[in-house]
Amino acid sequence: MINELVGKIKKLEAPIVVGLDPMLSYVPEHVKEKAFKEYGETLKGAKEAIVAYNKAIIDAIYDLVPAVKPQIAMYEQFGIEGLIAYQETCAYAKSKGLVVIGDIKRGDIGSTSEAYAIGHIGKAKVGSKEYQSFEQDFITLNPYMGSDSILPFLKVCKEEKKGVFVLTKTSNPSSGEFQDRLIDGKPLYEWVGEKVHEWGSDFMGDEYSYVGAVVGATYPEMAKVLRKIMPKAYILVPGYGAQGGAGKDLKDFFNADGLGAIVNSSRGIIAAYKQEQYAKFGAENFAEAAREAVLVMKEDLRQAWVK
Amino acid sequence: MINELVGKIKKLEAPIVVGLDPMLSYVPEHVKEKAFKEYGETLKGAKEAIVAYNKAIIDAIYDLVPAVKPQIAMYEQFGIEGLIAYQETCAYAKSKGLVVIGDIKRGDIGSTSEAYAIGHIGKAKVGSKEYQSFEQDFITLNPYMGSDSILPFLKVCKEEKKGVFVLTKTSNPSSGEFQDRLIDGKPLYEWVGEKVHEWGSDFMGDEYSYVGAVVGATYPEMAKVLRKIMPKAYILVPGYGAQGGAGKDLKDFFNADGLGAIVNSSRGIIAAYKQEQYAKFGAENFAEAAREAVLVMKEDLRQAWVK
Repeated sequence: MINELVGKIKKLEAPIVVGLDPMLSYVPEHVKEKAFKEYGETLKGAKEAIVAYNKAIIDAIYDLVPAVKPQIAMYEQFGIEGLIAYQETCAYAKSKGLVVIGDIKRGDIGSTSEAYAIGHIGKAKVGSKEYQSFEQDFITLNPYMGSDSILPFLKVCKEEKKGVFVLTKTSNPSSGEFQDRLIDGKPLYEWVGEKVHEWGSDFMGDEYSYVGAVVGATYPEMAKVLRKIMPKAYILVPGYGAQGGAGKDLKDFFNADGLGAIVNSSRGIIAAYKQEQYAKFGAENFAEAAREAVLVMKEDLRQAWVK
Repeated sequence: MINELVGKIKKLEAPIVVGLDPMLSYVPEHVKEKAFKEYGETLKGAKEAIVAYNKAIIDAIYDLVPAVKPQIAMYEQFGIEGLIAYQETCAYAKSKGLVVIGDIKRGDIGSTSEAYAIGHIGKAKVGSKEYQSFEQDFITLNPYMGSDSILPFLKVCKEEKKGVFVLTKTSNPSSGEFQDRLIDGKPLYEWVGEKVHEWGSDFMGDEYSYVGAVVGATYPEMAKVLRKIMPKAYILVPGYGAQGGAGKDLKDFFNADGLGAIVNSSRGIIAAYKQEQYAKFGAENFAEAAREAVLVMKEDLRQAWVK
């Protein structure tokens, strides 16, 4: 799957993943009204509104980008109906040929991590039958519990040819509280980066590893170091746009081959119609505004990876 | 809710939480057969088997223990149907008067943590309506991303009078890989413990804080230090029994008042019927075996907290 991701990024010249994080406040009124008219102001109504919104955006961008990244929390907040929306969103994105990166940030001890892995990137056994629930190609993981919380995921990844991105240096302001603390002269995120490299060395695609890392766009200096520590890890980069990063600041996330990083934008794309820059589209044409925002982002990112 | 938990622990003399982590291999054949006969070897069949199993165990132990702790991964592995089983398990436990600790180990940046908080311990707004999905009183959180990943949960906790347990020193063998690394002479888990104390100081119940910590039964020496660093934090203790800890080793998890810790046992209770010690019950009477195992655990734990 890492080979497919890298191939698509090269072909489309777009190291971009669109974050499908649909807060209800992003969903245009006419989409919500239609769903609520049919299902009421219910969790099912919310689910229908979110799926309709996501599908329209996917339809507008699937030929431009290699991947989407639904953030499961935004769905989980609406309980079971929200999680059905997550499942349908993943399945629809796959049906359009997109790589799906599930932003789930899971991690637990051995058998529990294995259960998460089965649910998200593997198949659950029921008697003699097997079932896949959520169609994700990659998922994000939290490393706080150490190797034995990560390795069960990698076992399933190997069986299913899927991949992971491990939180290394996150984009939020207080990420440094623990991640930047110096251990024997090196910050914690570098220790994690070394482990990412180690875990990934055993599990390589053609050019890059199935084990990637999350490094926030907001910390380019740290990315420079991490890029060298884990040269074969694809870096998933949150925090572009809305959180402050810009294309020209992202050079050090990429390798000399122009590859090695995929930059996420969520609100900046899916709620582009709310920005002054794209206001001309109007809420009715939110999906076209998203497409235009992808094209602008694609140009902006050339400053980072074209040598 | 922390007051209710402490009150129940005192009344029942049982600082015990039963981990409802139903691997399908734990569910007795007759329970599975009944469910599969009706629904086939499907995800819905798995869901029905799990819920029937959990309800029988809850019926057998609800008058003995203050709380249950369903591990969401074990449900999530069966996708939407599994998550319905999680929802029904939480609701059934609440209907029996149990405190529900959702072992979800979530954590993400600001607005995303808020979405998780809404889904698990808050209420989702849809238009003018509000909905609660999962009936949990406490949830577990992962601190790797720092304060701004935890504080959105505490905001919802305050509104809803619910609580959290933050992963501090986990019970698994490789927990030390990052958690034990020395930062300015102190291991990372102590830095996290100090934050738990700080976060909790702003949010106190009568005797203990709404912000607790997870410290594994497998690391009693570290618990001794953490107990002092965060005197007002309830400690949720996994790793008892199956993972190696025993009652006499858990003294330092408790305060001098005989309170301050609640010990989890999952497999040791819910799959007690598979152990030689409880084999006399037989698979048919798995729930009675679970009850007996709780009574044995209650006695064993007196070595830890009775002065």
